[in-house]
Amino acid sequence: MIGGLATGPLSERKATCRAGSNIAFIKYWGVAEVATGQAGDQPPVHGEGLNIPLNNSISMTLAEAHTTTTVAWEDSVNLPEDTVAIDGVQLKGSAAERVVAHLDRLRALAGVSDNARVVSLNNFPMASGIASSASGFAALTVAGAAALGLRLDATRLSAVARQGSGSASRSLFGGFVEWERGWGRGESERESGGAPLLRLDSALLDSRSVAHQMYDERHWALRDVIAIVSAGAKRVSSSSGHRLAATSPLNAARTERVGAWLEIVRRAVGERDISLLGPVLEADALAMHGVMMTSEPSLLYWQPGTLEVLHAARAWREEGLPVYFTIDAGPNVHLICEADAAAEVEWRVSALPAVRRVLTSGPGAGPELLDGHLF
Amino acid sequence: MIGGLATGPLSERKATCRAGSNIAFIKYWGVAEVATGQAGDQPPVHGEGLNIPLNNSISMTLAEAHTTTTVAWEDSVNLPEDTVAIDGVQLKGSAAERVVAHLDRLRALAGVSDNARVVSLNNFPMASGIASSASGFAALTVAGAAALGLRLDATRLSAVARQGSGSASRSLFGGFVEWERGWGRGESERESGGAPLLRLDSALLDSRSVAHQMYDERHWALRDVIAIVSAGAKRVSSSSGHRLAATSPLNAARTERVGAWLEIVRRAVGERDISLLGPVLEADALAMHGVMMTSEPSLLYWQPGTLEVLHAARAWREEGLPVYFTIDAGPNVHLICEADAAAEVEWRVSALPAVRRVLTSGPGAGPELLDGHLF
Repeated sequence: MIGGLATGPLSERKATCRAGSNIAFIKYWGVAEVATGQAGDQPPVHGEGLNIPLNNSISMTLAEAHTTTTVAWEDSVNLPEDTVAIDGVQLKGSAAERVVAHLDRLRALAGVSDNARVVSLNNFPMASGIASSASGFAALTVAGAAALGLRLDATRLSAVARQGSGSASRSLFGGFVEWERGWGRGESERESGGAPLLRLDSALLDSRSVAHQMYDERHWALRDVIAIVSAGAKRVSSSSGHRLAATSPLNAARTERVGAWLEIVRRAVGERDISLLGPVLEADALAMHGVMMTSEPSLLYWQPGTLEVLHAARAWREEGLPVYFTIDAGPNVHLICEADAAAEVEWRVSALPAVRRVLTSGPGAGPELLDGHLF
Repeated sequence: MIGGLATGPLSERKATCRAGSNIAFIKYWGVAEVATGQAGDQPPVHGEGLNIPLNNSISMTLAEAHTTTTVAWEDSVNLPEDTVAIDGVQLKGSAAERVVAHLDRLRALAGVSDNARVVSLNNFPMASGIASSASGFAALTVAGAAALGLRLDATRLSAVARQGSGSASRSLFGGFVEWERGWGRGESERESGGAPLLRLDSALLDSRSVAHQMYDERHWALRDVIAIVSAGAKRVSSSSGHRLAATSPLNAARTERVGAWLEIVRRAVGERDISLLGPVLEADALAMHGVMMTSEPSLLYWQPGTLEVLHAARAWREEGLPVYFTIDAGPNVHLICEADAAAEVEWRVSALPAVRRVLTSGPGAGPELLDGHLF
């Protein structure tokens, strides 16, 4: 699908993409310090705009939690400024600025100064632990680039999407995906504990920090049973939180351990071994929340319902049901199990008092350009 | 009071002590590896029985949460084995063994082989995040030693109590107390990150790892408003948990940071500065629970009600109420504030749906030998 994105008529300058969210088995939390100039030119800055992660991460793209986005480019006479509507609401303030900054990247790549009309729909609640920014920036990147006629392969699109939202780099691929931190592949992940300096010559298309597909969506019938315990918006967005990771005394210890966990998860996914995957899934989620809670300021994303689901999942596992949890930067709990256990997990989790809604997804395909548009 | 413990008539061989629990501002979590023999004699072992901590800790002894314990020693004809009743229940199994092991320490010190009848009462729920083992082993040590006529000062008693339960070493003193980890005082706490080897020549009375009083109970009218969200017993006792600390990838990072936190807490207590104390109080509690959650097996002491209280406390603080939380190895939340805010904190916390009971305590005195006995 992505290979065909450059074939649309340039005259129309409008495209629509649907991209799946993803659930990380090894988490992305914290950005590395990045030097964008020559050595000595400038002080190192946190790679916020570049979103170079402290560690590799591994995720499953979700079939059933996705964002559909239409982007139409128009000249500034017809459209004096970018307009962005998500789920029927016109974005304003910092949320709008973040999308406009991403449209700037696409404008710079295409060498145009046109404005964009962006309309986006999520099929799941935003800002509550399901990565709407992952699917959102993936869909925005693919639709925006396609509407501009940009000829970019999925890897380059992954690099561009990453700069809008780190985890969006993974949503450029279907199935099971690893996002490479992105410097010297020969280097061990163990060296990522601190905040290393990177040198990026051309930030926009530099494809050192990009995702790749490990296995496609048919590899393993895994399920993410998402227990939504609160649909409220987060008080601290994860994009702000990434800048805080380095303030936690536990951060370096987590990223140091991630190297060993990545190896286990690669093997577990390769061998489709839930009992190998599960404990690491839980350990890294808990380690990431340990880092969040001890950053300055402290980020406490969990709600009472979060704990209710965590304890329930562990109790069910003791009863023989093979289910493991992970938690993104929000209160909701993702219960990971194989397809044959999913109905039982759904049934049990729906009965918990704190659970307001349950959404189940298997692994999904990569972004798809659609014929129809949202406007 | 403790100075007088050796003056009771030896013939009676019965004594009763009331000791306060304590709430740690910097936590004790994890025991160091300890070599008890000569170098090369034996492999290093975790200092479980010795309870040499990975880091110094600082606590406030509680006036209103205490244990009263009567110990009577009798010869083996009259009393064929130790009997231990806590809150009206005869102890059996590992709980009884732990008390018997402590009675063995007292027997060894006194050079006797008599058995003990122990009756103990807590005025708060056991095993739910209020340190019943701290007040319990402090009271047992003082009463047991007094009944044997042992002439031991509070520092020596602190060393003995520590071997029953690490945090009991702090309950040997009133007010604000620091428990020294216990090797080379010139060494920095930063070196305690790993699992250092210690050499203890005479474990029972070695007083390198003991508590001392920083300030007495009149120094600062601080309050611990304890929100009891669950009175259920813990699934994993903290004494087992201490052995697991080293399995967490975050443990060394926490103990490394504790050095800096100790300095802040010493200064905050000295200057009676709640706004200096509070953030460190929360950070170390969250760091400790981060270590617990990521140990193998993972220890998740929090319950849904725990999160309800944590979020409420932070919301109240944003409204201007100076209150900070800490959490021991259990689900309950200790809200720390100054006396003039305590009524407001009590009122608000009592209104939270998850809170079953509220217990408030100021700083209390050290252990007291009582004239009356429980039997």
